Amino acid sequence: MQARSRALAADGKRIGIVPTMGFLHEGHISLIKRAKKLSDVVITTIFVNPAQFAPHEDLDKYPRDEKGDIAKIKKVGGDIVFIPNAADMYPANYQTYIDVENLSKSLEGAIRPGHFRGVTTIVAKMFNITRPDIAVFGMKDYQQGMVIRQMVKDLDYPIRIIIAPTVREKDGLAMSSRNKYFTPAQRKEAVCLYASLAVARNMVKVEKVKKVSAIRKEMVDVIKDICPMAEIDYIAFTDYKTLAPVKIIDNTCICSLAVRVHGVRLIDNMRL
Amino acid sequence: MQARSRALAADGKRIGIVPTMGFLHEGHISLIKRAKKLSDVVITTIFVNPAQFAPHEDLDKYPRDEKGDIAKIKKVGGDIVFIPNAADMYPANYQTYIDVENLSKSLEGAIRPGHFRGVTTIVAKMFNITRPDIAVFGMKDYQQGMVIRQMVKDLDYPIRIIIAPTVREKDGLAMSSRNKYFTPAQRKEAVCLYASLAVARNMVKVEKVKKVSAIRKEMVDVIKDICPMAEIDYIAFTDYKTLAPVKIIDNTCICSLAVRVHGVRLIDNMRL
Repeated sequence: MQARSRALAADGKRIGIVPTMGFLHEGHISLIKRAKKLSDVVITTIFVNPAQFAPHEDLDKYPRDEKGDIAKIKKVGGDIVFIPNAADMYPANYQTYIDVENLSKSLEGAIRPGHFRGVTTIVAKMFNITRPDIAVFGMKDYQQGMVIRQMVKDLDYPIRIIIAPTVREKDGLAMSSRNKYFTPAQRKEAVCLYASLAVARNMVKVEKVKKVSAIRKEMVDVIKDICPMAEIDYIAFTDYKTLAPVKIIDNTCICSLAVRVHGVRLIDNMRL
Repeated sequence: MQARSRALAADGKRIGIVPTMGFLHEGHISLIKRAKKLSDVVITTIFVNPAQFAPHEDLDKYPRDEKGDIAKIKKVGGDIVFIPNAADMYPANYQTYIDVENLSKSLEGAIRPGHFRGVTTIVAKMFNITRPDIAVFGMKDYQQGMVIRQMVKDLDYPIRIIIAPTVREKDGLAMSSRNKYFTPAQRKEAVCLYASLAVARNMVKVEKVKKVSAIRKEMVDVIKDICPMAEIDYIAFTDYKTLAPVKIIDNTCICSLAVRVHGVRLIDNMRL
């Protein structure tokens, strides 16, 4: 892959990368399409990265479909698929990790310690292997995108980071490979994240509510109405650039939440 | 610098980098010469990196001579000098660091916590800015070279790391920008590190001594004879690849030591 990337760069090609964990859905496809528009050659990487999973998380059961993924990438015009294996990416005696110290601490980082360290490390490795000009990530993993942007800025990677909009199912549920874990009945309740965000946005835009505490209370009610068993990890209102918490909504605010729906941990977010 | 490096690479030039903290001596010059032999364009970087100094260390008084350095680099045929400033390298809100976890813990890392984190971070930044094919470091900072090699391997940088031999003064003292701190009388005592290493090598090669404890005892005596005020941070005998401590000398052993001579901390090493 390194030799191939070097040859492409020597040929004057603009390289785009879409790093994924595979089991591709419409969200991933939209990222590949976006990368196609911005570069000459799109490399899609598929790697279920052990370093970003904690021991109790779903690494082992994370869904995989290499053959299906390759077909989807081909169909949408992706040029190269890079599918390394874990033993090559983390050989014996592996010991180097990258930390984005502040942005990694809150929200997902607080609930999943070490998660972003795993993400930034694998993304840097993919960057060093493929030497892209641009890299496209999804808005659903908003904090991830911000953490990667900070890493790229701090470590002087000559790479432009694009954060592309979340693609949603008809009922509003954000596309996620983890949605396949649900039974049909559970799947219906999974809409609770989006429904609560939609209510929050309505409160801000239409009812002109400004106080985070009032909005959060309403969101909890919406979630519990739709999915009584839901366990809410957090509902956070932050500045969309710094991820610093806000108490009063202004137009720099993004609401992010993580909810466990029948044992499946989902995340979503929306600018308010 | 990024635009320049990209243009050089597009032109098919092989780039060599020699990262330094400036105040160049014959040791640095030998690295530039080595880089010249192995590449088309040699970039020498000069940056006294705050991130690798602890608050009590000699960052502020570290010697600088930008004009003299540039003249020396020109004379030896170095092509490009890159001299960034600290505010550009570590702007407000800087927060990304790279850790090589195991190799950074012992020897220098044990005495100077955070030192190698600063080294690997700045070296990665320099790599991302200059995109070299090869990078040359000096053997005097042996552990540093090993830590950087591990980082390059782990993070998949397509860069060859060269560790070039230590250049010594006539009496054997390893060249170091810090040697300028000494008065002439102190300077004479600074040979104690090399003298103890030479005795150690003689014990191994000629007297066939194998026990580390016996050699270390003799080295301490040599150091104290030459410089009674010397404070020894460590005298370590390790495998030269893994840096794991050894008790019996075999041909994989390297001896490293750090000694404070009249308040100036010096390091040196020798394969036994």
